[in-house]
Amino acid sequence: MSVEDRLARLGLQLPVPPRPAGSYRPALLASGFLFISGQLPLHNGELRYRGRVGAELSEAEGGEAARLAALNVLAQIKAALSGFDRLVSLVRVDGHVSSAPGWTDQPRVLDFASELFQQALAEKGAHARAAFASPQLPLNASIELVVTASVAEP
Amino acid sequence: MSVEDRLARLGLQLPVPPRPAGSYRPALLASGFLFISGQLPLHNGELRYRGRVGAELSEAEGGEAARLAALNVLAQIKAALSGFDRLVSLVRVDGHVSSAPGWTDQPRVLDFASELFQQALAEKGAHARAAFASPQLPLNASIELVVTASVAEP
Amino acid sequence: MSVEDRLARLGLQLPVPPRPAGSYRPALLASGFLFISGQLPLHNGELRYRGRVGAELSEAEGGEAARLAALNVLAQIKAALSGFDRLVSLVRVDGHVSSAPGWTDQPRVLDFASELFQQALAEKGAHARAAFASPQLPLNASIELVVTASVAEP
Repeated sequence: MSVEDRLARLGLQLPVPPRPAGSYRPALLASGFLFISGQLPLHNGELRYRGRVGAELSEAEGGEAARLAALNVLAQIKAALSGFDRLVSLVRVDGHVSSAPGWTDQPRVLDFASELFQQALAEKGAHARAAFASPQLPLNASIELVVTASVAEP
Repeated sequence: MSVEDRLARLGLQLPVPPRPAGSYRPALLASGFLFISGQLPLHNGELRYRGRVGAELSEAEGGEAARLAALNVLAQIKAALSGFDRLVSLVRVDGHVSSAPGWTDQPRVLDFASELFQQALAEKGAHARAAFASPQLPLNASIELVVTASVAEP
Repeated sequence: MSVEDRLARLGLQLPVPPRPAGSYRPALLASGFLFISGQLPLHNGELRYRGRVGAELSEAEGGEAARLAALNVLAQIKAALSGFDRLVSLVRVDGHVSSAPGWTDQPRVLDFASELFQQALAEKGAHARAAFASPQLPLNASIELVVTASVAEP
């Protein structure tokens, strides 16, 4: 089953891969790895889920933001590799969560992204992860995902 | 001398490698690199050294937290590679320190981790490093270390 | 045209590559990648541009800080590779900006670094990027750049 088919079963589809927010590439391929620029919870170019989890946003909304950012990661992979065939596996996911002071359940929110990766990519969705709490994120986004993937030679 | 022997000389031993705090792998191997998930100052599953250096914790306690997180990094490497023989070298250490406002000596605290890596791994402990100040970290940990290592083919 | 010639046209020259702020290497080479330690806006060893963009520093000063940190990245690459011939490309730039509460234009400040990389390195300056807002950075620096590059075998 294709990644798109698996997403459709979840009622999801890949968004348009976001354009960079500045003078850089959305993703860069080097020596068997794909380095993907930081992905925010954008839906077809429009930022959703602004503000801090534990303050302006609930944990459930933070989880939705994490899923949306994860969908953009998948959209960037598809655009960079012209599909998912060359993807060997995700390898590292750094998850930055805009967080109210004293709120420390970032891993719970990031699980929404991690689980989406595994639902969409099956065994290729495995990854190491690190979670971080930010007082704010660029453009006032609630979530930023920084992902590196392993890629087979064409 | 083995890594465990070098640690024993320092009065230290490897902890049980922590289980992930969510839906991800403790470490992932790809194309000659081992990507290790963020490691906290856990001792056999129990979080020690909560709070911010410069506020709830002294710099000396921050240093102890950094050493404990570093021991967990070593435990994850050993678990992922079934020992240290395949380890070529650490390559990157990102050190995130939960920090009181205005406290900016993160490199001094992270040196406790860097020096432990070099004591335990000798020349394999060399690494590039980046230090960061966080207002808080997941689970209210005081330190988080994110490490990538270079690994020889089996 | 050499990297140094391109910089001279911009009225810039490479600084002395900074010594590490602790017990680590300025850069480490492994399996086709150069991992460069976090670079601050230092000019020949002296930290410039202290404090937060949006508070103690203007956006224009933040941009100058980003350019200076980028020059130090280039100086470290040159020192690690004995020049730029072996550099294939930058691959990932993580840009951490010390930020006043509520200020969220980190990408605009980091574009000063991204554009310098492309002016100095031409097509080798392409990179994926992620932007972050920190409440403070080590040594009270305003900017920290963490860069990974792709390198050809000697």
